[in-house]
Amino acid sequence: MDSEINQETNKNKNESVNIENCIIIGSGPAGHTAGIYLGRANLSPLMFEGDFEQEIAAGGLLTTTKIVENFPAFPDGIDGYELTERFKQQSTKFGLKILSESVKSIKINNDSNSNNQIFSVSTNTNDYLTKTIIIATGSTPNKLQIDSYDKFIHKGISTCAVCDAGLPCYRNVPIAVVGGGDSAMEEALHITHTASVVYLIHRRDTFRASKIMQDRVLNHPKIKIIWNTQIKEVCGTDFVEKLILVNNDLTESELVVSGLFVAVGHTPNSAFVKDIVELNSNGYIMTNNSKSTNIKGIWACGDVQDPHYKQAITAAATGCICALEVEKYLHTNS
Amino acid sequence: MDSEINQETNKNKNESVNIENCIIIGSGPAGHTAGIYLGRANLSPLMFEGDFEQEIAAGGLLTTTKIVENFPAFPDGIDGYELTERFKQQSTKFGLKILSESVKSIKINNDSNSNNQIFSVSTNTNDYLTKTIIIATGSTPNKLQIDSYDKFIHKGISTCAVCDAGLPCYRNVPIAVVGGGDSAMEEALHITHTASVVYLIHRRDTFRASKIMQDRVLNHPKIKIIWNTQIKEVCGTDFVEKLILVNNDLTESELVVSGLFVAVGHTPNSAFVKDIVELNSNGYIMTNNSKSTNIKGIWACGDVQDPHYKQAITAAATGCICALEVEKYLHTNS
Repeated sequence: MDSEINQETNKNKNESVNIENCIIIGSGPAGHTAGIYLGRANLSPLMFEGDFEQEIAAGGLLTTTKIVENFPAFPDGIDGYELTERFKQQSTKFGLKILSESVKSIKINNDSNSNNQIFSVSTNTNDYLTKTIIIATGSTPNKLQIDSYDKFIHKGISTCAVCDAGLPCYRNVPIAVVGGGDSAMEEALHITHTASVVYLIHRRDTFRASKIMQDRVLNHPKIKIIWNTQIKEVCGTDFVEKLILVNNDLTESELVVSGLFVAVGHTPNSAFVKDIVELNSNGYIMTNNSKSTNIKGIWACGDVQDPHYKQAITAAATGCICALEVEKYLHTNS
Repeated sequence: MDSEINQETNKNKNESVNIENCIIIGSGPAGHTAGIYLGRANLSPLMFEGDFEQEIAAGGLLTTTKIVENFPAFPDGIDGYELTERFKQQSTKFGLKILSESVKSIKINNDSNSNNQIFSVSTNTNDYLTKTIIIATGSTPNKLQIDSYDKFIHKGISTCAVCDAGLPCYRNVPIAVVGGGDSAMEEALHITHTASVVYLIHRRDTFRASKIMQDRVLNHPKIKIIWNTQIKEVCGTDFVEKLILVNNDLTESELVVSGLFVAVGHTPNSAFVKDIVELNSNGYIMTNNSKSTNIKGIWACGDVQDPHYKQAITAAATGCICALEVEKYLHTNS
């Protein structure tokens, strides 16, 4: 199926025959919602869902999440993988074409004979031409550099307090947060609503967070700060049970917690377009209210352009906005 | 149940005992998503879902929609009423309290002894105190002033092309659009993707839409403009079958169409706060990226602050944003 579509859009690497209306790069809630809206408008969008070669799983971060409790309209929660499958069923039903390749680069084709911008999008195996691009490649939470991280991710280690702190397994139990920036402060404060106590572990003796966020954390009766300390290991049978901490003076200690929230930043998956669209200093794609980038014909949605909220529902909404803007643009530029 | 909550929050009209963390006004996708996020953060939000007395149905516009095809994660579509019920089940599960009263006014209580803003929110029967307010009252599509409007609404008459034009009943058939502003142009262009022909009916001989939108419409091969004409009546058995048109010279004619999209504007439901928060010239509440209004402690989300996209998914996302911002605010201002 994939190769059929492939042949249709590109006879071979050097002879592209079709020009797509819109290429969507990325396959999380943002990308698929863009697909639903463009598909329903009969615009036959093409999605590159990515493959595992760059550690970008098709479907995005959500697919690894056991239970999503806060996507509206699922009162009993829903498995992240199932939610992503439902997005995909809906977008393909309305005509989204999906290829499993990963996009390596985007090029602007300057055609002096035309006012219309055309882009070429290159994967490992093919080049594609398109009138518009929606970048929805998400962001990747930075990992702790400890052996047990991969064992316990989603089994007591979480990278999103707003998503997970409300889950029954993290309620009324001691929880640790690691980090020292604004988002670590936010995560710690959020977790105070549900945990019995919050330990905030930081490797230095000062936070780099803003003064106001620090004040909130330092004055919060439920938050205990553990300064000058790193996590050496996470222990447990099937779920996090305790942490082995190491102080900067090399003394070790144990901390009994039932969860660890890692807030040491995210890396937006924007490296492949860093020479094309404007990024902020943290690598997030800069977008305006209509989610357009600084390049006419390229939009971005979801976590790759959102340093703040990073929720499935906010990502999906920006996918919708991109699709509606692309549709409007194509009426003038086709 | 409602009266129990009532007694808990307000002993009587003049003796308010509790101060709520957050009052959410409105019960569509925006309001309930705010409720889900605040509820999961254990902040016990209180919602006024409205009653019919002001023609505001609990649940908002969605409840009247037969099938919603573009809310992501529902590949087979979902009945608007059922979707709203699912929002409500989820928000109440996480502790949202709901009262069926309609809010009449908001007052800022200036307390010189405190830095913290407190608001009083008044319904027909009670006053409530709260630290924060989220306004999610939506907007109401303006009606055509014809007798058959109510008979055919959602039975061939629609007020949202992006929502409905992709439905099977409107595909590959002749469709009429009425209106002369930018949104009428957008609706007409959107419908060209799916309809066989689009008649754009306007009562004057010029559009008030922007030049660029007019050009797109006037140059579109599938759009036929019917100038100087109003719709006198909509006819059909169970679904729209034809329109009786009347030209400004009073001659009448018939137009066979299978659908009528009414694009004569929306009225945001913001009148009750017009003296409190800043509105734009069309009555939409002015919000910034974090959905805060010009008044510290008051946020707005959904269609009441969105002149552009007006989708269930975009409304829900702004409800999420408001809730996350309210939570952050309460950490400093409680």
